[in-house]
Amino acid sequence: MSTACVIVIGNEILSGRTRDENLTWLAVELNKAGLRLRESRIVPDITEAIVKAINECRAEYDYVFTTGGIGPTHDDITAEAIAKAFRIKYVLNKEAEAILIKNYAGKMNDARRKMAYMPEGATLIANPVSAAPGFIIENVYVMAGVPGIMRAMFDGIRGSLKGGKPVLSATVSTFLTESMIAAGLTKIQNDFADVEIGSYPFIRLGRLGTSLVARHTDTARLEQVKSEITRLVQGLNGEIAPD
Amino acid sequence: MSTACVIVIGNEILSGRTRDENLTWLAVELNKAGLRLRESRIVPDITEAIVKAINECRAEYDYVFTTGGIGPTHDDITAEAIAKAFRIKYVLNKEAEAILIKNYAGKMNDARRKMAYMPEGATLIANPVSAAPGFIIENVYVMAGVPGIMRAMFDGIRGSLKGGKPVLSATVSTFLTESMIAAGLTKIQNDFADVEIGSYPFIRLGRLGTSLVARHTDTARLEQVKSEITRLVQGLNGEIAPD
Repeated sequence: MSTACVIVIGNEILSGRTRDENLTWLAVELNKAGLRLRESRIVPDITEAIVKAINECRAEYDYVFTTGGIGPTHDDITAEAIAKAFRIKYVLNKEAEAILIKNYAGKMNDARRKMAYMPEGATLIANPVSAAPGFIIENVYVMAGVPGIMRAMFDGIRGSLKGGKPVLSATVSTFLTESMIAAGLTKIQNDFADVEIGSYPFIRLGRLGTSLVARHTDTARLEQVKSEITRLVQGLNGEIAPD
Repeated sequence: MSTACVIVIGNEILSGRTRDENLTWLAVELNKAGLRLRESRIVPDITEAIVKAINECRAEYDYVFTTGGIGPTHDDITAEAIAKAFRIKYVLNKEAEAILIKNYAGKMNDARRKMAYMPEGATLIANPVSAAPGFIIENVYVMAGVPGIMRAMFDGIRGSLKGGKPVLSATVSTFLTESMIAAGLTKIQNDFADVEIGSYPFIRLGRLGTSLVARHTDTARLEQVKSEITRLVQGLNGEIAPD
């Protein structure tokens, strides 16, 4: 099973100004592609912070995806920081420049040309929304931060990702609380050690409850666990809640 | 200026099942408390992953706040992992146990008692919502993952945090695109090197635009920068957009 890490780059997330919308979407899509998202980091627009996160994560995970910081303004420093992380020259990519010249017709300027600078030897990621491409360097995939653009970029690369089977999930929700169900659930987890079972408390319609979520790549195995969990809930006279 | 890091612990965030609601709220509140949020990490419910993140981040930042993984079920391993990170014994905290016994009246059980286990010598964080406390060990603040509970816990500790002045922001939004404004903005950033200026593209009512956000602790300084940015936008015949 290949592993993945998402690095969200941007002061606006850490200041609370902008709520990140990319991580949840990527988490779902990476799973569909059979990659296991194992960590995410959110780092500021500071070169040293980006270099450190990139180098630690690209060594630890099979795939690293970054979002943010590849626009035309002074605070867009992701591409240069990644070149620094790889100790590769930060250069004008002729293919990217050609795309931008075509897109902006006669209105090319230095700020727009900046978006064609990237680590030497990078492979482009197409941007069907606003032209300026992302790029791939080794196992690091560099994408835009604007959600609509990031999604379009990811859609273009997902076919090239080498993943395993997607992890599927089965959920049983009940109005029992976690601490009422914990002992029985531990027993089920021990009996099904290959299945990841998570317990998530909720408050719904003013009532406390718990969602029990089993995750595995095999549907039949999931159904077995779901039956066991349902039996546990019913044995405790628990009401099944709608998901 | 004291620095802070938020570590979100939970498979449910990395699987995409649950969208994290805590980071944005904490980002805003930490800033109000005069702490600078410099990094966030999202890690799975795996002991080694938690230990690693805690030890790296507590060495690097003044304050570390964690959310998630302190409930009664088998997948709640945060407290034990943090004891391991600190190489401190994981023990029953008598004060926490007393709170739980009182809360659950005659209905104490092993799962509930588990929530009173934590690193030896930890200081409790009150939980006015559901009783089971969080805890503080050195510069690490361990809180619940359920947003309503996490917020109540944070409200109880915010008075004890030693921060500086909050960072304030001033925003100018315009229907100019980033690459039209980039050169002028770089000049302003150079003239006001002490002010952090960020540029954030948006699509609003089908029109492309950019929000220019200046951040500084001093209101007068912010107003100066805001005037400069407004002048830049007007000089480019840009329309000011509502925030």
